[in-house]
Amino acid sequence: MPTLHPVHLVGAGPGDPELLTLKAVRVIREATVILVDDLVGEQVLASVLDGVATPPRIVQVGKRGGCASTPQAFIERLLVREALAGEKVVRLKGGDPLVFGRAGEEIAALREAGVDVQVVNGITAGLAAVNALGTGWTDRRCAQGVLLVTGHAQPGHPGPDWDAIGAAAASGITLVVYMGVAQAPRIVEGLLRQLPADWPAAVVQGASSANERCGLSTLGELPAMLQDEGFGSPAVLVIGRVLEAGALAQAEALLTPPVARAAG
Amino acid sequence: MPTLHPVHLVGAGPGDPELLTLKAVRVIREATVILVDDLVGEQVLASVLDGVATPPRIVQVGKRGGCASTPQAFIERLLVREALAGEKVVRLKGGDPLVFGRAGEEIAALREAGVDVQVVNGITAGLAAVNALGTGWTDRRCAQGVLLVTGHAQPGHPGPDWDAIGAAAASGITLVVYMGVAQAPRIVEGLLRQLPADWPAAVVQGASSANERCGLSTLGELPAMLQDEGFGSPAVLVIGRVLEAGALAQAEALLTPPVARAAG
Repeated sequence: MPTLHPVHLVGAGPGDPELLTLKAVRVIREATVILVDDLVGEQVLASVLDGVATPPRIVQVGKRGGCASTPQAFIERLLVREALAGEKVVRLKGGDPLVFGRAGEEIAALREAGVDVQVVNGITAGLAAVNALGTGWTDRRCAQGVLLVTGHAQPGHPGPDWDAIGAAAASGITLVVYMGVAQAPRIVEGLLRQLPADWPAAVVQGASSANERCGLSTLGELPAMLQDEGFGSPAVLVIGRVLEAGALAQAEALLTPPVARAAG
Repeated sequence: MPTLHPVHLVGAGPGDPELLTLKAVRVIREATVILVDDLVGEQVLASVLDGVATPPRIVQVGKRGGCASTPQAFIERLLVREALAGEKVVRLKGGDPLVFGRAGEEIAALREAGVDVQVVNGITAGLAAVNALGTGWTDRRCAQGVLLVTGHAQPGHPGPDWDAIGAAAASGITLVVYMGVAQAPRIVEGLLRQLPADWPAAVVQGASSANERCGLSTLGELPAMLQDEGFGSPAVLVIGRVLEAGALAQAEALLTPPVARAAG
């Protein structure tokens, strides 16, 4: 029986290779097998592995919401098999493994097989998104907290309770919706039961990557803006008054004369 | 007039020096002046600056909730003054600058003075906290989202709306409360209007640091547990069903016989 190593679930951050942590870099460079999500850019892995004497085996296990992809159960079996074979296994995920990353299921499967698991946190996309918008998740002047939620409902499970989430947002909590572009009309319909149509809303696609793109709107006009301007995944929606403090909002205010804004 | 450099607001992460990003390390090592929060461990800065040819000037600007400390306005004036003098200024904060970090106010003050600002995201304490507990912020089996909120109410401002936050939590959202230990009795009283007393709750003090300490409880018993076991800041409260999936919860279940649990 080979010596077993703990499996590392590692956050690759939002896209910019410089946003990996020192610990992520070390663990990736020590790995013998890496299972990679399709949310992790090729450039990220290439830059980290640059100069490694014995490059690890790399297995692509993409798993985009709604698309044909590697089933979760297969990924879990593969993690267990490689770990029990004595490999130093890294499971590399976009953002942070503990934020919409199915880490819980993978940790449970590994522990059940007697394999130890360690998680290396990463910068989650929603944080890079507000950074791109020139604002924060919170701001003591207008937002006492932030709520991150997935817009991708599981088949057979009730989705998020948009009434309760909208009520929390109205009380002064910023909303950050992951995987929400495809379902934006349904999500916005739910939120509009608790929030006014002119509530600030924005989208960030590919936050921190070379292809980063932002759009500013209002909650009521967000679905039309996403469609008209062709925003697609991976993208994050940001909804809340923190956007009024953002640099991008200030820039838009400077570009758009007040008269046009009032008329629009 | 000297050449001006952008001021970098940099997240130092939760405590473990290995959880800084590559970008944070680069920017800190290039700095000529660093303004540091007291939530940033001395060891973090020392490890990053190890071997730097010309060490930067380091200014401590601690600002603990409720304690005598450097006023925010003074910090902002100092940032502006150093930047206008041509220094390469880093404002180093615990966790991430965009999560309860007053970044918005510092960005506004710098921009008003004509100084460019860049933010380098960091790992926020609440993420390291769930990692320590062996669970995640979300889990598609029981938590569709996560709500981070501050327990430290501003003088003269209404605090968070614990009714709305409790209702969101009851709908399947994990709660992570920063700076909540001192106000735990009041926070729990608010949440119990929406959540049952046996809802899982935990505390993590010094997440990811050498002094990390965890405690598991229920919502109803959390304030007593915090007091009896002497938990203090910096600490994060985690409240939600994700804790049932956590490794620590599993370990406690193994340690505590079912009969004792039923009787307790």
